[in-house]
Amino acid sequence: MKIGVLGTGDVGKTIATKLVAVGHEVCMGSRARGNEKAVAWAKGAGGTEGSFAEAAAFGELVFNCTKGEHTLDVLRQAGDLSGKVIADVSNPLDFSKGFPPSLSVCNTDSLAEQIQREFPRAHVVKTLNTMANSIMVDPRSLPDAHHTFLSGNDADAKATVRGILASFGWLPDEIIDLGDITTARGTEMYLPLWVRIFGATKIGAFNIKLVKLG
Amino acid sequence: MKIGVLGTGDVGKTIATKLVAVGHEVCMGSRARGNEKAVAWAKGAGGTEGSFAEAAAFGELVFNCTKGEHTLDVLRQAGDLSGKVIADVSNPLDFSKGFPPSLSVCNTDSLAEQIQREFPRAHVVKTLNTMANSIMVDPRSLPDAHHTFLSGNDADAKATVRGILASFGWLPDEIIDLGDITTARGTEMYLPLWVRIFGATKIGAFNIKLVKLG
Repeated sequence: MKIGVLGTGDVGKTIATKLVAVGHEVCMGSRARGNEKAVAWAKGAGGTEGSFAEAAAFGELVFNCTKGEHTLDVLRQAGDLSGKVIADVSNPLDFSKGFPPSLSVCNTDSLAEQIQREFPRAHVVKTLNTMANSIMVDPRSLPDAHHTFLSGNDADAKATVRGILASFGWLPDEIIDLGDITTARGTEMYLPLWVRIFGATKIGAFNIKLVKLG
Repeated sequence: MKIGVLGTGDVGKTIATKLVAVGHEVCMGSRARGNEKAVAWAKGAGGTEGSFAEAAAFGELVFNCTKGEHTLDVLRQAGDLSGKVIADVSNPLDFSKGFPPSLSVCNTDSLAEQIQREFPRAHVVKTLNTMANSIMVDPRSLPDAHHTFLSGNDADAKATVRGILASFGWLPDEIIDLGDITTARGTEMYLPLWVRIFGATKIGAFNIKLVKLG
């Protein structure tokens, strides 16, 4: 599949590299074609790079790997997103008052819903935002089963993202469809707990497993 | 230990019954002595009952098992809480717009912090608020290890609560001290994810296990 990855930070590079490794054609997007980090990534990983608009136009699916504070601005630069699946792994973390961060939107709204409202013809699927990027693309690196979530309004888009997750190593039972895009409030609001667990344990390479009765 | 349990709902009854079962003297508190539910509980479980103030005066430790919307009002009725440990298992769930609930306080504050600010001489310890009450008091009913959290400013109070959790069946490694009372923002903000997982799976008897590298 042709996939655009928006963002040249650790999350973007990690996701983009994994996508290439599992056989996809990937264009990494940044503010302007020729971005140093994107060029280095493309050379090393065997992908291409371009502006946000070029990467979005390239992809049938677009991974939003930008920081939450920049996400809406980046997507506004990305051109026509109609019909595209947006796999949104960002979080609306607000570091303006230092660490630990608060959220810039929560409780009765979420960043995923803001994206879906502003780009109503795109199909936003929130996923993977509840863990460090190393775990996103290598779930089998943890010593037990653990879970990720899907939130989105479009069943086909969720199926597409589920396929990508499977190619990353996620097992079918580890992917929990929470429902429509409003359920992204749940996974985004988990971040403050993630941050506090990280603060207490100093271990970022963890994820949660749902342990159920029966 | 002498323990006051505030609240006659399912959480209060479950916690109070377990506390008696593991050897504590328990007084269940409600709006007024003679509350039908509290009387029935006391008769069945072998405890006593009284007003919120009577239950709080009775206990060296007070379990707050009231609904979040009532918590501050109840504690204001509970008299002098100086020096007491308040084990706070409540959540600030706002059902005023139906299900799923939002939170009445979050992000840059929490219910636990509101309690600690209003009763500065009490020692608030947030714990067990991330699961159904059946799991709180019977952690070994789940088929794998799983975790609970402590948030509070007073180390001795946290040690006391840790002892209670151990008597419920929690293993030492399953109890994670997140830090001071502000870390309760994390566990309270997990509730929207809990609610969405429950909505998707229809299973309330679950909890999260932290799966870590190494």
